Amino acid sequence: MSLAEIGATANGGVCRLALTDEEIAARRLLIDWAEALGLSVFTDDIGNLFFRLAGSDPEAAPVVTGSHIDTQPTGGKFDGAYGVVAGFEAVEAMLDAGAAPTRSVEVVAWVNEEGSRFSPGMMGSEAFTSRRPIAQILEVTDADGITTAAALEAVLAASPNLERREFGTPIAAFIEAHIEQGPVLERNGVPVGVVTGIQGSRRFRVEVNGEAGHAGTQPMAERRDALLAALRIVDALRATFAPDDAKFTVGLFDVTPNVPSVVPSRAYFSIDLRHPDQATLARLGDAIAAVCADHAAPCAARIKEIATSESLEFPEAIRATIAAAADTLDIPAIPILSLAGHDARQLHYHCPTGMIFTPCKDGVSHNEAESATPADLAAGTRVLAATLVKLATDV
Amino acid sequence: MSLAEIGATANGGVCRLALTDEEIAARRLLIDWAEALGLSVFTDDIGNLFFRLAGSDPEAAPVVTGSHIDTQPTGGKFDGAYGVVAGFEAVEAMLDAGAAPTRSVEVVAWVNEEGSRFSPGMMGSEAFTSRRPIAQILEVTDADGITTAAALEAVLAASPNLERREFGTPIAAFIEAHIEQGPVLERNGVPVGVVTGIQGSRRFRVEVNGEAGHAGTQPMAERRDALLAALRIVDALRATFAPDDAKFTVGLFDVTPNVPSVVPSRAYFSIDLRHPDQATLARLGDAIAAVCADHAAPCAARIKEIATSESLEFPEAIRATIAAAADTLDIPAIPILSLAGHDARQLHYHCPTGMIFTPCKDGVSHNEAESATPADLAAGTRVLAATLVKLATDV
Repeated sequence: MSLAEIGATANGGVCRLALTDEEIAARRLLIDWAEALGLSVFTDDIGNLFFRLAGSDPEAAPVVTGSHIDTQPTGGKFDGAYGVVAGFEAVEAMLDAGAAPTRSVEVVAWVNEEGSRFSPGMMGSEAFTSRRPIAQILEVTDADGITTAAALEAVLAASPNLERREFGTPIAAFIEAHIEQGPVLERNGVPVGVVTGIQGSRRFRVEVNGEAGHAGTQPMAERRDALLAALRIVDALRATFAPDDAKFTVGLFDVTPNVPSVVPSRAYFSIDLRHPDQATLARLGDAIAAVCADHAAPCAARIKEIATSESLEFPEAIRATIAAAADTLDIPAIPILSLAGHDARQLHYHCPTGMIFTPCKDGVSHNEAESATPADLAAGTRVLAATLVKLATDV
Repeated sequence: MSLAEIGATANGGVCRLALTDEEIAARRLLIDWAEALGLSVFTDDIGNLFFRLAGSDPEAAPVVTGSHIDTQPTGGKFDGAYGVVAGFEAVEAMLDAGAAPTRSVEVVAWVNEEGSRFSPGMMGSEAFTSRRPIAQILEVTDADGITTAAALEAVLAASPNLERREFGTPIAAFIEAHIEQGPVLERNGVPVGVVTGIQGSRRFRVEVNGEAGHAGTQPMAERRDALLAALRIVDALRATFAPDDAKFTVGLFDVTPNVPSVVPSRAYFSIDLRHPDQATLARLGDAIAAVCADHAAPCAARIKEIATSESLEFPEAIRATIAAAADTLDIPAIPILSLAGHDARQLHYHCPTGMIFTPCKDGVSHNEAESATPADLAAGTRVLAATLVKLATDV
């Protein structure tokens, strides 16, 4: 748990935002671990970290596992970090067992999965797989106007001697272990989920422009209050999505000038919309613009879609390999759909990809109270190790 | 307009928050003006500035005029600043005319009327009149956790040689000139309003606590989304206040952790409620707690009233003096109620107090587009000067 101490919060959670000093410290810890295990360390132009256990055939594409080490501002100890730590433990177990795989096995920490400071996230896996142009990623700014490029420079400068790998380097297979972040495994009493695919999502930003006015003098009938217009829009969106039980979250909500005695001139908010059915997701997402237009008056609303991810299914062969590994170890496992996005979403378009889920307490995540049992985490790690050995050996 | 250049914004407004470097520069400008006119300069322990034109009887309490020089973050050139500049112009006119009043005439700039950075405002006039304990004022912190005491120290250190005056020093009368910040004078085509009194206000803070969750995985039915609960409360308050046409403003609205993919765990917002009728104001303000309690579920709401101001009426004698001054100058004037709060509200409890209003374009204020005509401003200044001469001479 030494990783969880970096950015630890008073409430037992973790705040380790991407490309911060906390992340630099966490990267240093991973590099120390890797060096202690004798792994070679690589990075790339977005700062992803790869830790390589060499296989007998250095020309064969590696089998890669891992996740991310950045967290939400009030995040937990396991989201992301578990996948990286499980990767290290799997590699350590292979070393202890004297495993001699043909393919190299690598642990990866993808940069900025969460997208809290620099949004949208998945920057590391999207850059590596060329799903988003690196130039566009580097231009993204945080709330203080600092660019990703500038923050990244400091992160890369902190470990200047690492060999840089090209984006898109071939990978034989990618397996990501992650806590479920939902209640299904816990409610079924099963320690491992073989992930069938990932729920799609659409992300928007809405800007509502009204007019500033004096809280004591401006007649109510003459106001163009951007906050009240934004509230009407959010409520109308909630009503629009409710019949399909789509996941609808307004997580970011900023008001300008945001002082008590001025009628707000501007409101700016995020929309995160998800649904496992691709057609429903498309229909609901397409309805947002009209809802905004219908409820913005007397203000004006502008909407921008900043990220879209279709629902996807992982290849049957990978899912079967994971299920077989669990079966051999006598660890109960069930198929499960991932409702959250993960770096595996991007890797899916680059190489055969799969995911292993483990339960988390009450399904709670993106919350400082995030929790998981050592037994469940160990079960997931054992299935991961067996899967990696199988994939790296049967070439 | 050299004052308006300090903190000038790209949109033609002014951002000169209380106790900032911009305010220090503006204070320096006022002191320069005063020294050029031969006025003595005083301050006090909250940083109010007094500029004194000595009368023939140095023992007689002075007649004081003025307002404030701090602005809202997207404020205009006239709110507050007009009252201070008009005071200087009135004094200059008295000097030019060789007026020899019995009482001293002073121009004052009260500290932090707006309350944007350190809230609530009216700190200078409340401290001077002991309407709020100075110890409580000095503890107030801004969004960065900086105390009023610390910010004030820097402001006072910038002009270290000023004589300090005791709080509560006797004042014979206080007259504040101000733009109306509403549309009444403009619509009536009248350059001067004799203010009859000030509309009451009640200010609250509401904190809604829910629970953070993952935007993709947490079932909608299990969420305790603090933003959605806050929206329901604001909408219910709007509906509660609408029948009485009370002024209702939620100007400050903050969400935690305020990132796109986390269900908000906390929302914090301000309520600014005003009504000219004291009984209606009391009834509506008292209804807020129940509305919050009724609409917060499944979250919890806490409400705190941070400032209350009753409706008040200025003394008939002062109003008559202002009206007579306008009449003598042949400047049309009508009685008018102030819908906004002003420092004069605090002075009212300390000495005979009145206000002079001038029109502002379209009634717009607390907005960078705030505007007023030179002719209207000059008319107000002439009525102010004649009122001051009358009050300072007839002892």
